[in-house]
Amino acid sequence: MIVDRLYDSVKAKGHVCVGLDTEFSYLPKSFADAFKTRGEAVFQFNKEIIDKTYENTACYKVQIAYYEALGLEGLKAYSETLRYIRKKGAISICDIKRGDIQKTAEMYAKAHLQGDFEGDFVTLNAYMGINDSLEPFLDYIANKEKGIFVLVRTSNQGAKDFQYIKDQNGEFLYTTVGEKLQQLAQQYMGECGFSSIGGVVGCTNNEEGIQLRNRIKNLFLLIPGYGAQGGGARDVVPYLINGNGGVVNSSRGIITAYKNDPSNPSDFADAARKAVIKMRDEIWGELT
Amino acid sequence: MIVDRLYDSVKAKGHVCVGLDTEFSYLPKSFADAFKTRGEAVFQFNKEIIDKTYENTACYKVQIAYYEALGLEGLKAYSETLRYIRKKGAISICDIKRGDIQKTAEMYAKAHLQGDFEGDFVTLNAYMGINDSLEPFLDYIANKEKGIFVLVRTSNQGAKDFQYIKDQNGEFLYTTVGEKLQQLAQQYMGECGFSSIGGVVGCTNNEEGIQLRNRIKNLFLLIPGYGAQGGGARDVVPYLINGNGGVVNSSRGIITAYKNDPSNPSDFADAARKAVIKMRDEIWGELT
Repeated sequence: MIVDRLYDSVKAKGHVCVGLDTEFSYLPKSFADAFKTRGEAVFQFNKEIIDKTYENTACYKVQIAYYEALGLEGLKAYSETLRYIRKKGAISICDIKRGDIQKTAEMYAKAHLQGDFEGDFVTLNAYMGINDSLEPFLDYIANKEKGIFVLVRTSNQGAKDFQYIKDQNGEFLYTTVGEKLQQLAQQYMGECGFSSIGGVVGCTNNEEGIQLRNRIKNLFLLIPGYGAQGGGARDVVPYLINGNGGVVNSSRGIITAYKNDPSNPSDFADAARKAVIKMRDEIWGELT
Repeated sequence: MIVDRLYDSVKAKGHVCVGLDTEFSYLPKSFADAFKTRGEAVFQFNKEIIDKTYENTACYKVQIAYYEALGLEGLKAYSETLRYIRKKGAISICDIKRGDIQKTAEMYAKAHLQGDFEGDFVTLNAYMGINDSLEPFLDYIANKEKGIFVLVRTSNQGAKDFQYIKDQNGEFLYTTVGEKLQQLAQQYMGECGFSSIGGVVGCTNNEEGIQLRNRIKNLFLLIPGYGAQGGGARDVVPYLINGNGGVVNSSRGIITAYKNDPSNPSDFADAARKAVIKMRDEIWGELT
């Protein structure tokens, strides 16, 4: 089960998920100028970041929107980035947030768990229904060492619009999503005590967070909202169980860390490495 | 406003939205064999379908999942298909169901409303919040002749999981989504009385459908679920207003119509044309 690999990776290397939300404008100009296409520059930028960070990184989350925005050459860079992560023996999460049903869902599973865009995990949106949205992914989870993270609760302001709607039993919508996932997740358990069906839960540190975690105990969590979105190491703790069971994403805080030392932009990968180690240690610090 | 173009197209050509969910296996073997790559075959198949149907078609919905499943060459075919639709003066809906926030949502807007993957409309999922999910698309709607369709209520069985959850005021989640959209839509009205912010609503013919339509009067609707998913012309009627304000998607029912006459597979485009005309007339028949 892929979740066991992720668990072991967290244990060995810490909780940091490096978000490769690589917009072309994030690249140091002197670096970008050396390449013929923007796609090539983006891939080479990612490659250097991966080389310098993989020893201290639980996994990489590659946000496909940034690559789609560069068109066909961007998707080539996306494909190459995923292939390079795999070559380094690291774990990838394709942040695609796809959500569809029937044959279309089957096509998305095929697209992102094999072939040019193959990753280890994908993120999904289950608004159209749990089984209908996830069904085509289950065979990959059971038999092909793949996993999914399904949107449960995000930490943006607008999450309140729908995710926090209370039903007639007083349950938040996100709890209902979480509980349906938790139920399904139990059929896809790794040896580590977590499932290869995970959830996306923003790190909002409050009582509701603790209550939610208690009801989705077997979900491995992908936790966004660190750094740029306002969360800190302390906010992550309620979402971990015995110090594991979650990875914490940071994107711009890592890949544009070099901007804090603009005197040496060629060192962007080393700046990323330092940012990863700092974040890793901050989280470890809260756990001890 | 793009919605006025779509309204005029429906008025002139009928309500049919041809779904180009073109899986490679749908192509007649004799046709597919003539091309070097699967991507090229898929694009040429689409091209022939478009040539034979655009005079009787309101718009084309291109489901990106089928193209992503073919990897990079599939996305090339996707890009070429969108460009060809534009070249014919027809209207495209990119069925991408993206849903994300902040910078990522901005990247999706950039990716699908300009550049290699430019369409006229995109479909979106607003689980993460109405304004947070849609904000980056609004400038394209106001100033660049673009539009969006946001998932409101689908007609698959699993839609019940979340969309039909009743809140503490007795409102279905899909109604809350619809009403928030209706509110926003009023800032982006075309001259035709509908907004360039539309909704995806499956054609389930019941009292709830009529009630929903009454509360989202200004949304132009993209109506899936015709044919393969069980809906018929009569089920569509409650979602139209004065005979307009909606397009009805059919995918396999049109692009694989030739399979009902397998003696002449090279006529797949003509079979599609006949299927479009039949469907168009069925809907017109219910309206008169």
